[in-house]
Amino acid sequence: MGVITLTTDFGLIDGYVGIMKGVIQGICPGAVVIDLTHDIPPQDILSAAFLLHASHPYFPKDTVHVAVVDPGVGTERRAIALRTSNAFFVAPDNGLLSFIIEGGSVEEVVNLNNPRYWLPKVSATFHGRDIFAPAGAYLARGVPLRELGQPIDVGDLITFPVPRAYRDGDAITAQILHVDRFGNLTVNLPMERFKEEGEELLMIYLPDETQPLILHPQNLTIHVGEYEISGIRRTYAEGSLGEPMALIGSAGYLEVAVPGDSATRLLNVKVGDEVRVKIERSP
Amino acid sequence: MGVITLTTDFGLIDGYVGIMKGVIQGICPGAVVIDLTHDIPPQDILSAAFLLHASHPYFPKDTVHVAVVDPGVGTERRAIALRTSNAFFVAPDNGLLSFIIEGGSVEEVVNLNNPRYWLPKVSATFHGRDIFAPAGAYLARGVPLRELGQPIDVGDLITFPVPRAYRDGDAITAQILHVDRFGNLTVNLPMERFKEEGEELLMIYLPDETQPLILHPQNLTIHVGEYEISGIRRTYAEGSLGEPMALIGSAGYLEVAVPGDSATRLLNVKVGDEVRVKIERSP
Amino acid sequence: MGVITLTTDFGLIDGYVGIMKGVIQGICPGAVVIDLTHDIPPQDILSAAFLLHASHPYFPKDTVHVAVVDPGVGTERRAIALRTSNAFFVAPDNGLLSFIIEGGSVEEVVNLNNPRYWLPKVSATFHGRDIFAPAGAYLARGVPLRELGQPIDVGDLITFPVPRAYRDGDAITAQILHVDRFGNLTVNLPMERFKEEGEELLMIYLPDETQPLILHPQNLTIHVGEYEISGIRRTYAEGSLGEPMALIGSAGYLEVAVPGDSATRLLNVKVGDEVRVKIERSP
Repeated sequence: MGVITLTTDFGLIDGYVGIMKGVIQGICPGAVVIDLTHDIPPQDILSAAFLLHASHPYFPKDTVHVAVVDPGVGTERRAIALRTSNAFFVAPDNGLLSFIIEGGSVEEVVNLNNPRYWLPKVSATFHGRDIFAPAGAYLARGVPLRELGQPIDVGDLITFPVPRAYRDGDAITAQILHVDRFGNLTVNLPMERFKEEGEELLMIYLPDETQPLILHPQNLTIHVGEYEISGIRRTYAEGSLGEPMALIGSAGYLEVAVPGDSATRLLNVKVGDEVRVKIERSP
Repeated sequence: MGVITLTTDFGLIDGYVGIMKGVIQGICPGAVVIDLTHDIPPQDILSAAFLLHASHPYFPKDTVHVAVVDPGVGTERRAIALRTSNAFFVAPDNGLLSFIIEGGSVEEVVNLNNPRYWLPKVSATFHGRDIFAPAGAYLARGVPLRELGQPIDVGDLITFPVPRAYRDGDAITAQILHVDRFGNLTVNLPMERFKEEGEELLMIYLPDETQPLILHPQNLTIHVGEYEISGIRRTYAEGSLGEPMALIGSAGYLEVAVPGDSATRLLNVKVGDEVRVKIERSP
Repeated sequence: MGVITLTTDFGLIDGYVGIMKGVIQGICPGAVVIDLTHDIPPQDILSAAFLLHASHPYFPKDTVHVAVVDPGVGTERRAIALRTSNAFFVAPDNGLLSFIIEGGSVEEVVNLNNPRYWLPKVSATFHGRDIFAPAGAYLARGVPLRELGQPIDVGDLITFPVPRAYRDGDAITAQILHVDRFGNLTVNLPMERFKEEGEELLMIYLPDETQPLILHPQNLTIHVGEYEISGIRRTYAEGSLGEPMALIGSAGYLEVAVPGDSATRLLNVKVGDEVRVKIERSP
C-alpha cells in the first residue's frame, strides 16, 4: 500500500484537492494520501521546493511526493517524474524539484508524456487532476517509472539556483529560505549541536567546505535586519518575549524567532534577504 | 474498502469534522475518507450543491458523498440518502442534491428514519455526527440503501431551480454559478474544445438544445459586469496580468479569470449575476 | 489497523503536520490518521484539553489521541502517554490531559523516556515529530504502553483546575469553557433532554451533586454578559436572528448562541467568563 504526499497552492476551499484524492483512489485503491500543505502562496515555487526538501526525509521509503505549483499549466512546460534513492517526485518541470535535484541522488527522470497514464480527458487548466495525480497513483501502485513517459537527462531539467551560504574569513553570508506561519525565519545554514566531554558544541555545514566548522554556540553573532543576536539557544523557552533569538530549527537550519511575536514583521525581513553571521573566536 | 467524501460548512477549527471521521471509523473500519471541503460559506447550499455536482465524477464507483450544510438541523426537514448509477449521496433534504437530482440518474431514495443506523443518542444540533456520518459509513460498509429508512419518491425531494443558460438568436444568457478562492468565475455554460482538420473548435452545450453549438473559440464575446471579453483562451498563461479573460474551466464550464487578480472583485460581480455571451458568426 | 488522532496548534500552512503523518506511516503502515484540529490558538492548552475531552468518546476503542500544544518544548517538561479504559493519550505533561485525568478512568501512565521509541535524532524544537508521533504510532501498532518509558503515578501529572459549575440555592454559577468558530459559547454545565409522559424535561448534572436536577426547559434564566436569556431551546431554528438564545450543544453542555451572529462578540464575553443560571421553580 503506497504513501503519496500532496503539496499545492490550491487551498482547501474549492474541492480541487479532494478531486485529486478521488482520482488517486480510483487508480490506487487504499493509497495513504498525506497533505504536506495546500497553502503554498499562489505560484511561490521556491517555498514549495524548500518544503519538499525539508520534509521528504521523514516519509517511508518509496513515498511518492506529488507537487503542483504550476503557473505554466497548459503551456509547453513539461510534466516530469523522477526517482531518487528513496522516493519518487512528480511535478511540473519548473524548478519545484531544484533542491531535490541539487541533492544529487536522482536516479531516473521521465517526461510524463504517455497518455495511457493520464485521465482520458486532459483539461488545459488542471493537470493536478489530469496528469500529476494519476502519475503519482500509478507509481504508488508499482508501475515502473519508465512506463510513464520518455527518459530525460537530469541535466536538462529546469532548476533555479539554490541560494548557498558562503564564508569569507570570520563572516558567513546566508539567506532567508522560508518564513513559517509564526513568522519564524529559516536561514540556509545547516547546523547541529553535539556534546563533547560534557560541553555543548555546534557544527556548521558550509556547502563549499568539506569539514564542518566547530565552535561554541555562544561564539556566533547573527545580524539580521537592524538587529544583532548573540549566540544560538537550544529552545524557544530560553528566549525572552518580544526579543529576537536564534536557535536550530526543526529542519536542522539556523532559525531566527521572536517569542510571542513574528520575526518577519519585527525585523522587517523576508525570503531572500541576507543574514550575516559573525564568528567570534574568543577563547 | 469504501470511499467516503465529506462536504460541510463546519470549518476545520472546532473538531466537528474529526468527530464525524471518528464515528465513521467506528462503523466502517479502514474507510478512506476524503474532504471535499469544509469551507462552504455558512449555510450556502447552492455552493455546496455545485461543488458536489462538479466533483463526484472523479471518484471511484460507489463512493459515498456525505454533505452537511444544514440550517434546518433539528427541525422537521428530512435526512435523506440516494443512489445514482455510480454513487451514493447522503444529505439533508434541503436542495443540496439539486444538481444530482436534476442529472436524472437517481435510482433510489430513502428517508434516513431508521434509528438502528443512527448513533444511539441523537442531538438536536449535530446530525452530521449522529445521522449523516453513520449513514455514510453503513453504506460504505455495504448495507443496502433500503435498510436505512423508508423509500421516498425522487419527485418529492426538495430542490431549488438550477439556473440554466438559454439562447435567444445570437445571444446566450447565463449565470455565475461559483466563485473560487482565486476569484475566478464559473458560468453555467458547459463547453468543450476539439480539433477538426487541425482547426481548434468549440462545442457549447445548451440545456434546451439537443445539438451542441459548434464555432471558433474566437467567435464569442463575453459581457460580464462592465467588461467585454473577446474569445475563449486555452490557458491562463495566454492572458495578460490584470486583464479579464475567458477560458474553459477544469469542470468543463465557461470560466472568467483575471490573471494576477480576482475577477469577482475587479468585475464587481457575484454568484447569481448574469453573463451575456454574444455569438459572432463572422466567417 | 490503528486509529490515531492529531490535535495541535501547528496550523496547516507549514508542513509540520504532514511530517508527523509521514513519521507515523513509517512506524505503523496503514494507520488511519484523523485530524481533530490543528488550529488550536497558539499555546492555548485549555482549548485543546476541552476539545480532547468532548471528542474522544466518538472514536473507536483503543484510538490513540496525540496532542501537541507545547510551549515548553525542549525544556524539562515531561512527555507522557496514558491509557484509559478505552483510549490512549499522548501529550506533553502540561495540563493538556486535565479533563481526561479528572474523568477518573486513567489506568496507566508512562514518561516517554525510552529513546528506542523516539526518532534517532531528537530536535529541541519539534517533539511532535521526534517523540509524540512515534509514541502514538508504536501504540497504534500494539506496542505495550509500559515499553515506552517509566511508569508515573497519575497523581504526579500536571493538571490545571478544571472549572466546575456549582449551585447555591436557586442560582448556578458556571463558566464559559469554549468558543467555537461561529462564536457560540460552550458553558461547563452538562445537561440532557428527555421525555416523560409526553412532557419535555431537562436533567442538569452538577459535579458536586449525586442526583441530576430535573426541571422544565423553560424554567431557567441564563445571565451572560449584560443579557438575560429565558429557557433552553431545542434547535437553532427556534431562535431569532440576532437574539441570544440557549440550547444544549452537541457535546451535551449548555450552549449560548446568536443565530446569524457571534455570541462571543455580541455579548462581549470570552473563555473563562462567568455565566449565572437562575432556576425558577414556578409550577
